[in-house]
Amino acid sequence: MVGYKFMGKAHSHAYKDIGMFFDLDRPIQMQAICGRDEQGVKEAAERFGWNGYETDWRALVEREDIDLIDVNTPSNAHKDIIIAAARAGKAVFCEKPLALTLADAREMLQSAESSGVRHAICFNYRYLPAVQLAKQLIDEGRIGQIHHYRATYLQDWLIDPAFPLAWRLQKEYAGSGAHGDLNAHCVDLARYLIGDFDKVVGQQRTFVGKRPIPLSTTGLTAVASETYGDVTVDDTTSFLAQFKNGAMGVFEASRFATGWKNGNTFEIYGSEGAIRFNLERLNELEVYLREDEPRLQGFRTVIATESVHKYAGNWWPPGHTIGYEHAFIHLIYELVQSMREDGTKTYPDFSDGVKCQQVLEAVEKSIADSAWIDVDSL
Amino acid sequence: MVGYKFMGKAHSHAYKDIGMFFDLDRPIQMQAICGRDEQGVKEAAERFGWNGYETDWRALVEREDIDLIDVNTPSNAHKDIIIAAARAGKAVFCEKPLALTLADAREMLQSAESSGVRHAICFNYRYLPAVQLAKQLIDEGRIGQIHHYRATYLQDWLIDPAFPLAWRLQKEYAGSGAHGDLNAHCVDLARYLIGDFDKVVGQQRTFVGKRPIPLSTTGLTAVASETYGDVTVDDTTSFLAQFKNGAMGVFEASRFATGWKNGNTFEIYGSEGAIRFNLERLNELEVYLREDEPRLQGFRTVIATESVHKYAGNWWPPGHTIGYEHAFIHLIYELVQSMREDGTKTYPDFSDGVKCQQVLEAVEKSIADSAWIDVDSL
Amino acid sequence: MVGYKFMGKAHSHAYKDIGMFFDLDRPIQMQAICGRDEQGVKEAAERFGWNGYETDWRALVEREDIDLIDVNTPSNAHKDIIIAAARAGKAVFCEKPLALTLADAREMLQSAESSGVRHAICFNYRYLPAVQLAKQLIDEGRIGQIHHYRATYLQDWLIDPAFPLAWRLQKEYAGSGAHGDLNAHCVDLARYLIGDFDKVVGQQRTFVGKRPIPLSTTGLTAVASETYGDVTVDDTTSFLAQFKNGAMGVFEASRFATGWKNGNTFEIYGSEGAIRFNLERLNELEVYLREDEPRLQGFRTVIATESVHKYAGNWWPPGHTIGYEHAFIHLIYELVQSMREDGTKTYPDFSDGVKCQQVLEAVEKSIADSAWIDVDSL
Amino acid sequence: MVGYKFMGKAHSHAYKDIGMFFDLDRPIQMQAICGRDEQGVKEAAERFGWNGYETDWRALVEREDIDLIDVNTPSNAHKDIIIAAARAGKAVFCEKPLALTLADAREMLQSAESSGVRHAICFNYRYLPAVQLAKQLIDEGRIGQIHHYRATYLQDWLIDPAFPLAWRLQKEYAGSGAHGDLNAHCVDLARYLIGDFDKVVGQQRTFVGKRPIPLSTTGLTAVASETYGDVTVDDTTSFLAQFKNGAMGVFEASRFATGWKNGNTFEIYGSEGAIRFNLERLNELEVYLREDEPRLQGFRTVIATESVHKYAGNWWPPGHTIGYEHAFIHLIYELVQSMREDGTKTYPDFSDGVKCQQVLEAVEKSIADSAWIDVDSL
Repeated sequence: MVGYKFMGKAHSHAYKDIGMFFDLDRPIQMQAICGRDEQGVKEAAERFGWNGYETDWRALVEREDIDLIDVNTPSNAHKDIIIAAARAGKAVFCEKPLALTLADAREMLQSAESSGVRHAICFNYRYLPAVQLAKQLIDEGRIGQIHHYRATYLQDWLIDPAFPLAWRLQKEYAGSGAHGDLNAHCVDLARYLIGDFDKVVGQQRTFVGKRPIPLSTTGLTAVASETYGDVTVDDTTSFLAQFKNGAMGVFEASRFATGWKNGNTFEIYGSEGAIRFNLERLNELEVYLREDEPRLQGFRTVIATESVHKYAGNWWPPGHTIGYEHAFIHLIYELVQSMREDGTKTYPDFSDGVKCQQVLEAVEKSIADSAWIDVDSL
Repeated sequence: MVGYKFMGKAHSHAYKDIGMFFDLDRPIQMQAICGRDEQGVKEAAERFGWNGYETDWRALVEREDIDLIDVNTPSNAHKDIIIAAARAGKAVFCEKPLALTLADAREMLQSAESSGVRHAICFNYRYLPAVQLAKQLIDEGRIGQIHHYRATYLQDWLIDPAFPLAWRLQKEYAGSGAHGDLNAHCVDLARYLIGDFDKVVGQQRTFVGKRPIPLSTTGLTAVASETYGDVTVDDTTSFLAQFKNGAMGVFEASRFATGWKNGNTFEIYGSEGAIRFNLERLNELEVYLREDEPRLQGFRTVIATESVHKYAGNWWPPGHTIGYEHAFIHLIYELVQSMREDGTKTYPDFSDGVKCQQVLEAVEKSIADSAWIDVDSL
Repeated sequence: MVGYKFMGKAHSHAYKDIGMFFDLDRPIQMQAICGRDEQGVKEAAERFGWNGYETDWRALVEREDIDLIDVNTPSNAHKDIIIAAARAGKAVFCEKPLALTLADAREMLQSAESSGVRHAICFNYRYLPAVQLAKQLIDEGRIGQIHHYRATYLQDWLIDPAFPLAWRLQKEYAGSGAHGDLNAHCVDLARYLIGDFDKVVGQQRTFVGKRPIPLSTTGLTAVASETYGDVTVDDTTSFLAQFKNGAMGVFEASRFATGWKNGNTFEIYGSEGAIRFNLERLNELEVYLREDEPRLQGFRTVIATESVHKYAGNWWPPGHTIGYEHAFIHLIYELVQSMREDGTKTYPDFSDGVKCQQVLEAVEKSIADSAWIDVDSL
Repeated sequence: MVGYKFMGKAHSHAYKDIGMFFDLDRPIQMQAICGRDEQGVKEAAERFGWNGYETDWRALVEREDIDLIDVNTPSNAHKDIIIAAARAGKAVFCEKPLALTLADAREMLQSAESSGVRHAICFNYRYLPAVQLAKQLIDEGRIGQIHHYRATYLQDWLIDPAFPLAWRLQKEYAGSGAHGDLNAHCVDLARYLIGDFDKVVGQQRTFVGKRPIPLSTTGLTAVASETYGDVTVDDTTSFLAQFKNGAMGVFEASRFATGWKNGNTFEIYGSEGAIRFNLERLNELEVYLREDEPRLQGFRTVIATESVHKYAGNWWPPGHTIGYEHAFIHLIYELVQSMREDGTKTYPDFSDGVKCQQVLEAVEKSIADSAWIDVDSL
């Protein structure tokens, strides 16, 4: 694994926990974690339960005792590591967004395919039991023809103008702001649940243009200095979308949505029913079915913790809820189980990363051009 | 009508509005309103749309141009007026609680029955569309055998110790406090929805024992003086109950439930489903059905404003909600429509008032005796 | 009053109820209601409590015993009646949308202004206590600089393809569909709460293009025949918006949002706090304040039924909720009270109607042109 | 550790995860897990990450390489193991309820105290961030004098009469049913949050008296045979309570509350504010403060995932919620950290177990005697 901060912790925890709750065909060996700062990575290796560590990812990707390379560094570092790992014949697992640009993402996909290795991207929210239930209902036609898809990813951690200029606020490291970080999830969930995008038009704004340069950074938090630097990514991006299946979409991501902490929501309205989800209450799915008798139609709140709900039976009894980290466990379980000779792919791969990037760039181009953009034109 | 304060207004409004939204066999004539203070009652008559007024209820009940006498005075005045009106051959409609004591309530019922007049009591909450839906589901067996009935009526208007000693806080006018005022509604709804009580045990407390004597009173509010008097009713009463059908009940009424404004709630758990209601969101009913497929079981929130919901079709389009006052309109509509020679009784009558009083007194006796009391022993 | 269907009923009820709950400087006389079908209008006059009726609006607007003309006919009939009434020196009160086109709306405003009469438009939702509270908080700066405005108006009454081709689905009567009917409210609330629009871009769709021609129509419902006609208005319109104050907006109206009955919602995120409102729970306002101590920050649900909430003190005790119809009462109360020589305008007028129309047309032009449109360019 | 089923898994997971998210003074060594079935316990040891296993708890408690014995067997086995472990000088950590009877619980406390060992009981729900916040607010006086405490623990896993006769339904193994299993948590939380009980009166029922005898059992689930046996514990127990501080309590536990999966809720109403909690949404706490300005008073929903919330900072960013299992991690972290020479006790101990048992038995005696029982009389 390359990277040992917020995502490094979430992924490490998943590798460690899977075997306790899921039956694996062969056990996971957490061989090595990699980071440039030896002291930091050594401590992370111990704390997270890795057998060893490396300080140079080039050494890591060449190790013979490793089958899978997990990359969760800042986004700008993804490409080189992934391509090297794929060339070394390793399966690769990359955090989203896949790359800073669509061109890079395509190069990564091409590299993984030509190397013949498995490739996966960490669109973790697909793997919540409530989202799995949404997927089942749509695939079975229970929601009918989809008319509307509404999505938000709303947070508020940037409202304070004194919040420092972390790497996520700088284009060279992060590629974009709320758009790449948050809309990436919304776009992937939309594609996963209802299908591909046709065209988009968007708007974007940076509300606070200068922020104090951090003295040091740990994950999302940083201690600020008195020196200010430019915020070079968006604080919010919203867009209209039309899907290939005729559905109309509305998307909005923001780090200035006061009061929302992690509001990754979607609402789907179809000819037979409707679905609503909110990550802040991730165990629940709201479902409305027109097949219910008229006087009893209403949104029902399903607590997706029964053994009939995917993955839920591996955890606790009904009503004993799971948390944020569990989606990583489920996704990585699917990935690791697939890594047998005959393993079926049950995880999102780089082509999903490319298609997500394509939508995100179409939105950015629509903003630059003040025009609707056909997603397939990119 | 006798009484022209809070309830006088609510009832007057109902008489005035019914004809606009409901088809009546013959129109309602609002003949006269009665109160001791001539200036006050005259103004009320004008404002509320009554054709005239009286200052002596004895004169009112003798008038030949009146068919129905509506009594919504403080509770201690109910009995004499109702009995006189019944003797004068008038249909009678009384606010709850029917009387200060069970003995008085029985006397009133006996008087109305021996006079052969129609008698009704204002258990208005039965007549909300959402409550009607609950009733339908239970009667149809959709909830199955009832295991649990939970009810609260929670308000918080007495938390401030400076709130004055209004008539509702004095035993001689009000009979009791939270118990008679609030539990009366809970007990009636429980009887209406799932049937009669078997036995009860309760507890009661007055948290603030002395309050400033009001200089003047208007409805629930009053201007307080510096002189203090004793609060002679309960601030809260809660009780356990066992029903004749085997259900277990838990009831709680309070005027000290900080944050609740009008929390008349019930929850019913049965072998086939469950129901939850909260008067603060009176257009909604939460329904859970075990017949739903397992992965989709959840409480659904029905917004009872469709034309399939009783009374809702007389109002506005779906989702255009109604308010507190509408239950009075529905109940009085049922009462007035029934006042034809062949009219079926579709409203709660004094026997419901008596049975409610019986449960309330059983609870009070259980507190006095520190023991369970069989309701039928009273 | 001209018109006696859904809105005619809502307005009539307001005129009738105001005096019972609000102190008026002089009482309201409900002189005459007008409609082309004599039988229908006569019955409406009786049921709604009007002193008389007319079958020709030209006669109505000339009557000397009338000060105010209320127009709630289908939208295409607004203009002629309003202009004639204004010329006759009557105050005019018009349902929204003011007119079928911006040009017509401007002509109506100009006519009313040159006639020197009072003119008002029925943007009723401004007058809910919860919305008034939102307005106060924003005006006092408690929400701070506004970053985001999100609004929806979601209904689902057109999902069934067998629903007939009512007048609201035909461009010549309604002007537009979900856009003019629903977004009109959203646009007005946005302007009322945070100010004017700068530019917009939208998308629109008609999901069901042909519907059965109705045999007869009553309000929103109609009995369908076997003959089909074209739906000539939109089923849904959504748009992005940028406000003059720098806020970013997202709007969506639909009559295909399965499960929503009357989802007129807004969410406002500012530098100091946030506000959320949903018409399906119209007594409530959700408020988040960053000034709260950090560990206690959260959306609080205010039940706007206390006497400190505007208009609420005129109704019932705390927690005794009001319904849809009450907003009309409050708005018409403000209008009628203002109709004294020295009455201050406390209601929305035709200039608000024009500005709303301007935004709606800018959205339609953005759809026709596939481009962002400056609102002030129209 | 003795026991390797549902609770064994939850505890094992905690021991394994703590070090990754919390700083420990010295690392945890998971030495051995114990169970009678060698195959089962061996598999559990491997899966849960224990270094070894034992099949006889007597051998386990004598091992010199073990400092802490964790007991999560069925309740009837607690006493002997705990007393032996304490005598062997081990710190002891026991699942709730501490014992089948108050007498046994007292003997266990006495044994642990006379052995001078640390003793802890697994009242895990105290250790949720939201519950910690409730505790802080009450201790600081922000809620004021407590008037009301309402608690439920509602589940529905026994509604189906075909559910088999698991050990939790047999008095000899479980001691009691919903009462000991669920009310135990409610009683402990009440004591933790507002203080000790004065007197109680309760009611209890077993709705389904005979159930199929299970062929085999795994945790809560079991395969049923055709032979039926008696259910010897309660399906539901509710009780009224009066606290030493004058608060009035209402408690209800049920395994027949259709639709509730894990409804461990409490509501606390005090002179200055109110608090509400529901385990099905365990990241949230609803708080109402009378100190808020009147027009803005309402229950606010705090998502207790900020770094200002206890334990939350050790996990993920704001809004990234935790689940059921995390409370175990927090409690065991506190216990393990305290196991230094100078460690302050920051966990519930056997005296809490005894006091909880005392209340539970007082309720059972009140049912047997049909009378109020002073808790201190036992």
